[in-house]
Amino acid sequence: MMDFLEVKKNFSYELTEKVLPFWLKHGMDSVNGGIYTCLDRDGTLLDTDKSVWFQGRALWTFCAAYEKIEKRKEYLDAATSLVKFIDSHCFDSDGRMFFKVTADGRPVVKRLRYFFSETFAIIGYAAYSRITGDLSYRDKAFKLLEFVEYLRTTKGILIPKVNPENEPSIAFGGPMILLNVLSELRQSFPEKEEWCNSYMAKLLTEVETYFVRDDLKCVLEIVAPDGRFLKEHYDGRIINPGHAIEGAWFIMNEGLIKNDDHLIKLGLKMLDWHWEKGWDKEYGGGIIQYRDALDLPLSEYHQDMKFWWPQCEAAIATLMAYGITKDEKYLSWFNEVNKYIDDRFVDNEYGEWYGYFHRDGTLATRIKGNFYKGPFHIPRMYMKCIELIDYFNL
Amino acid sequence: MMDFLEVKKNFSYELTEKVLPFWLKHGMDSVNGGIYTCLDRDGTLLDTDKSVWFQGRALWTFCAAYEKIEKRKEYLDAATSLVKFIDSHCFDSDGRMFFKVTADGRPVVKRLRYFFSETFAIIGYAAYSRITGDLSYRDKAFKLLEFVEYLRTTKGILIPKVNPENEPSIAFGGPMILLNVLSELRQSFPEKEEWCNSYMAKLLTEVETYFVRDDLKCVLEIVAPDGRFLKEHYDGRIINPGHAIEGAWFIMNEGLIKNDDHLIKLGLKMLDWHWEKGWDKEYGGGIIQYRDALDLPLSEYHQDMKFWWPQCEAAIATLMAYGITKDEKYLSWFNEVNKYIDDRFVDNEYGEWYGYFHRDGTLATRIKGNFYKGPFHIPRMYMKCIELIDYFNL
Repeated sequence: MMDFLEVKKNFSYELTEKVLPFWLKHGMDSVNGGIYTCLDRDGTLLDTDKSVWFQGRALWTFCAAYEKIEKRKEYLDAATSLVKFIDSHCFDSDGRMFFKVTADGRPVVKRLRYFFSETFAIIGYAAYSRITGDLSYRDKAFKLLEFVEYLRTTKGILIPKVNPENEPSIAFGGPMILLNVLSELRQSFPEKEEWCNSYMAKLLTEVETYFVRDDLKCVLEIVAPDGRFLKEHYDGRIINPGHAIEGAWFIMNEGLIKNDDHLIKLGLKMLDWHWEKGWDKEYGGGIIQYRDALDLPLSEYHQDMKFWWPQCEAAIATLMAYGITKDEKYLSWFNEVNKYIDDRFVDNEYGEWYGYFHRDGTLATRIKGNFYKGPFHIPRMYMKCIELIDYFNL
Repeated sequence: MMDFLEVKKNFSYELTEKVLPFWLKHGMDSVNGGIYTCLDRDGTLLDTDKSVWFQGRALWTFCAAYEKIEKRKEYLDAATSLVKFIDSHCFDSDGRMFFKVTADGRPVVKRLRYFFSETFAIIGYAAYSRITGDLSYRDKAFKLLEFVEYLRTTKGILIPKVNPENEPSIAFGGPMILLNVLSELRQSFPEKEEWCNSYMAKLLTEVETYFVRDDLKCVLEIVAPDGRFLKEHYDGRIINPGHAIEGAWFIMNEGLIKNDDHLIKLGLKMLDWHWEKGWDKEYGGGIIQYRDALDLPLSEYHQDMKFWWPQCEAAIATLMAYGITKDEKYLSWFNEVNKYIDDRFVDNEYGEWYGYFHRDGTLATRIKGNFYKGPFHIPRMYMKCIELIDYFNL
């Protein structure tokens, strides 16, 4: 019998005493506002540039902690600093956002093929409007979503990444991130609920039609515009188990909200497939970075590493699946992934987690953050799991 | 006492019986022309797209083998197939080259910040003009170099990668690749010898002024436009030992050609520094992918892997340094790196080398090629080492 009260207590402690304080203390920039994420194990700054993704993601995180965990003034202050930094420094004159800016907010890199900086700003704005009651931020979030739609659907704006068949590609990442964005926006904007629901229904159909493949028992990351499996290409065969498992819990979560059994079954299927493919039984566990849909060898350099965020997604998805089904299989998976996290990722001395392990479970680098790792997946995991334990009365 | 005759025999055998045949048999596309490089251990095709870098690099490789090793018809045929594929399919209408095309030559990816596809086509064209006597190809090579210069120096053409200080960055890769390009072009174009020499002198000054850092005992990959060490940034501190060692032998080689003691000493210094920093004494040897100039932890995922090409560059540089100095230290380094290559990289069963090992020397993926690994560094190493053994009468 699992002691979920104990799990909740531990997660709450890690979140509020070890993880968020690490970023508040070492990440928040009291001079220029905003957050640094390139930190060494002990919080020492390793790169003074700022990730625009993480200005938005950290904004969401501190707002969510304020909203769901505790009304600490420091969370609100951090959120306010982040929202100001985004508004002042993260947008180019054409309305698109940068990818990296200097400490004081001058542009360093703008990525031309993507709109992820924008989507993370949207979820941050939406959450900020909820905790402050400042409705101008939900309007900003909605306008930015319309702009993302314009970027996505207007030919000649985003420099297209052509897929191996010489046609514009369809990537699972697009509908995935938008599902999350819409779910956040819907919470802040009751007037737009129907609009969000119908958009989400369209995205869910897109995911199921093009990316969820019963024939291969996996979610493909990239397919041809007509959904064809690009099996003659490294990129066409790539499976990202952590990403598919994240998608699985987004979909189960929507199934719970809508009481939609089809979505719940879809999410459970996606979880089952990618636990099977992703959990590394050969090398002591952990969700591995990539697999090949035909079990051919992979080309990406970090294909067999164990990153922190797939473990987070697996913890959420397995706990949600257990809450829904009460199937002990999911509980044992939840325990396995938590043990793997505790044994390797959690740094009891300085707080926060390490991010990057080799396949065999040895540490690859001791950094706590870079332009891709900062306060998002880990706090989200702790918060979502706490919420699930309450929701399912575990 | 080293038996260099034996080394030469082995290298020659590996080159002509194991490595080049692997690519001729499994890589060359008899239907569309050109070469596939995404091959599994046994030569099975893993991706049907073609790397434009490798159409040019393989062209250079087969020309060089024909020119320096043996006048085999299959080398000349491969070169002719490659040059035709490049001419027909690898250029966009604006004169720039693609990065990836389909098997039959339709564009897949064009990279906007770089001109490496062009530089590899130049060395291929230059070598092709030498083996065929077709002077139109050295003219094409020269025109393409002028075009690269135009791309490099005309503002607003290449989408600039801004460095962490919000200024356009200077990267070691630029002068490095151009040194190699000019050295190839000079061999094909005696009339342009003075022009090439004076351009190379400028590039060598650039390398020495901005990237070779006595204070840090390393070559920096990226510096501020005024040469400042960007020590507050992951990218600014990054050291790529294999790349610096490749630069070291380019420079020593130029020192030998020009009988320039300063260049030879510069190259030796670069080799000494990066053997010290790059040879992984902790984990059984091999040149490691990256180090940090201040010994801080790194952020790149593959930072501690052992790739094939740095081992190739180290073999050439250590043998050249031994030939120049007769210092036994370099001979022992040459032996160490060759033993590391033999024990891990060389695949005696199917020919060609593996490309990617973990830090501890275990194989990360069994692939023999992708868009970055194909017939270039390994054949160049064998050919250059054979040449050096003859040149120094070892």
